[in-house]
Amino acid sequence: MNVAGNSERPLLAVTMGDPAGIGPEVVLRALAAGELATDARLLVVGTRSILEDRARDLSLSMDLPPVVEAGECGEGDFGAFLYDVPGVDLVGLRSGVASAASGRAALAYIEQAVEWALTGDVDGLVTGPINKEALLLAGSVFPGHTELLAAHTGSRRATMMLVGGGLRVSLVTTHVAVRRLLGLLTTKRILQTIQVTDGALQTWFGIASPRIAVCALNPHAGDAGRFGTEDTTIVAPAVKQAKGKGIECVGPLPSDALFYYAAQGRYDAVVALYHDQGLIPVKLLAFDRAVNVTLGLPIIRTSVDHGTAYDIVGQGMASPSSLIEAIRLAAAFARRRGSAPRSAEARSTDQ
Amino acid sequence: MNVAGNSERPLLAVTMGDPAGIGPEVVLRALAAGELATDARLLVVGTRSILEDRARDLSLSMDLPPVVEAGECGEGDFGAFLYDVPGVDLVGLRSGVASAASGRAALAYIEQAVEWALTGDVDGLVTGPINKEALLLAGSVFPGHTELLAAHTGSRRATMMLVGGGLRVSLVTTHVAVRRLLGLLTTKRILQTIQVTDGALQTWFGIASPRIAVCALNPHAGDAGRFGTEDTTIVAPAVKQAKGKGIECVGPLPSDALFYYAAQGRYDAVVALYHDQGLIPVKLLAFDRAVNVTLGLPIIRTSVDHGTAYDIVGQGMASPSSLIEAIRLAAAFARRRGSAPRSAEARSTDQ
Repeated sequence: MNVAGNSERPLLAVTMGDPAGIGPEVVLRALAAGELATDARLLVVGTRSILEDRARDLSLSMDLPPVVEAGECGEGDFGAFLYDVPGVDLVGLRSGVASAASGRAALAYIEQAVEWALTGDVDGLVTGPINKEALLLAGSVFPGHTELLAAHTGSRRATMMLVGGGLRVSLVTTHVAVRRLLGLLTTKRILQTIQVTDGALQTWFGIASPRIAVCALNPHAGDAGRFGTEDTTIVAPAVKQAKGKGIECVGPLPSDALFYYAAQGRYDAVVALYHDQGLIPVKLLAFDRAVNVTLGLPIIRTSVDHGTAYDIVGQGMASPSSLIEAIRLAAAFARRRGSAPRSAEARSTDQ
Repeated sequence: MNVAGNSERPLLAVTMGDPAGIGPEVVLRALAAGELATDARLLVVGTRSILEDRARDLSLSMDLPPVVEAGECGEGDFGAFLYDVPGVDLVGLRSGVASAASGRAALAYIEQAVEWALTGDVDGLVTGPINKEALLLAGSVFPGHTELLAAHTGSRRATMMLVGGGLRVSLVTTHVAVRRLLGLLTTKRILQTIQVTDGALQTWFGIASPRIAVCALNPHAGDAGRFGTEDTTIVAPAVKQAKGKGIECVGPLPSDALFYYAAQGRYDAVVALYHDQGLIPVKLLAFDRAVNVTLGLPIIRTSVDHGTAYDIVGQGMASPSSLIEAIRLAAAFARRRGSAPRSAEARSTDQ
């Protein structure tokens, strides 16, 4: 049953994340901040007993009416609901420690939320932090959300974008060793990232004519071949082909100067070739507030851009800022998808 | 003759840089800003006719008493002097274009200034922008200042540090292709960079017990070997050996988080493994104001952190901020070297 649709207050599934990490408390703190009710209705997907424990530990309120299906979430007074995922086996769970139990639980929340997003029972998906080690202990073959969601939604072009500090940065490669980087950077892959980014900027961010800049691999973009040829032989052809498809795209540009100009507003998004190239600037400008967006999926999905932070669980130190920003961004995407025609004014309102 | 010595107003040689680039105008604008007279006496090393042309083009004042040797620069009213380097052949020079003439001239200025710095006739050296292509046309075998200065001073540990935006970042490798990076990153080289950085923080920046953080190569510092092993096998041993030598040093740390914490003041300097890793954060926070410092030389040397910008020569657009900051930093180094015992309070006053 699709109850989500084109609501002004879209319904977003918010997964609680790894129950041994800071996910439960950042969910509670984001709800307690009370700023989200006008943006979206939230359906928390997690385990009630864990949330109650954390609420008690941290003296947080916990006002989450239970639902047994997404369709029960009404437009009424309540801004948030809880789906207590059945059958989650918490034997062996220890707060602050990666375990098979915490990994299995985190996976169960995501699987339920993705299912609802695919059927349209929710307008989008916002994910709390998960832990790679716990996922491995639980037998998952995926190192993170992006890969897992790509597989669950049958998407071959899932692309990670980081949003924060006035930057939007898409990554051509993500969690790979520098040693493997050169083997993975192909013109085709860079072109696909440019295209997926261009499409998302139009559809989700409401930017009619996006301007995209592509990072160079080598210092000074290789300085005419003196410091490597890949910028000329691999990156430049991708930019040229993207232009041929009508995309307003420049590059490869020396990445040290590029991010400065992007933060000044010269480009709507940056395509970075590898993890640290893209994440250093975003984290520097928006350490606690960055949002991870998955482009190229058939569903709307944003996420916190931090981990489970096992070392500070239950201490009241975890900031809900990234989750709040992730919810807001997903809500803006859902409203834009729900509205027709697409609004170009929205360009300046999102990050 | 050593006239420089321990003056409160050290004498710094300031090279004009490539005469076809923005060097001459940023020198004139830095002098016109009038803020430097209390920091240092400046001996501009360049060509008078070029400076006069640029001053006329841009309606800038040019009040530079000529000297024929560094020893003539007195402690009197004048804050700046000019040494018009003799024998500079400007045939073929065109403003805004790399040429053998512009490269030869830039080299002549540097060679004179380095000579004075080595003999102690000046307290330090601040260099204007040079152009790699012009240097090559002039027959130089050095791609940039750092390599040239290392050779001219017989230094084997010359290390580039960028200072700006609250960050101090030393580079283990500089102008090399990513493809060559893994062959160059050795434990020995990383350790040397840590040691040179530690020494400079104490001697020049006046930090009694410097805290140094070392960047990881791979995303998430390799995530326990899942994304590459070099952080464990190459970087970690360098940090361990540095600690064994009494240096307060941590790492390898994931570079995206590390620069955020460094900018917050948690570390006195960062050791970055490659060019863009170190320059992306510095340029993002201090695009026009970053200073390039060469560590490991027997002389004090700072530099602008920008190029010759041939495309904007003579248009009045070039900012003198980086040169002004470079002069201030060199002056602070020279005063600190001149004072004994070393002052630890200075820690908070430099960038």
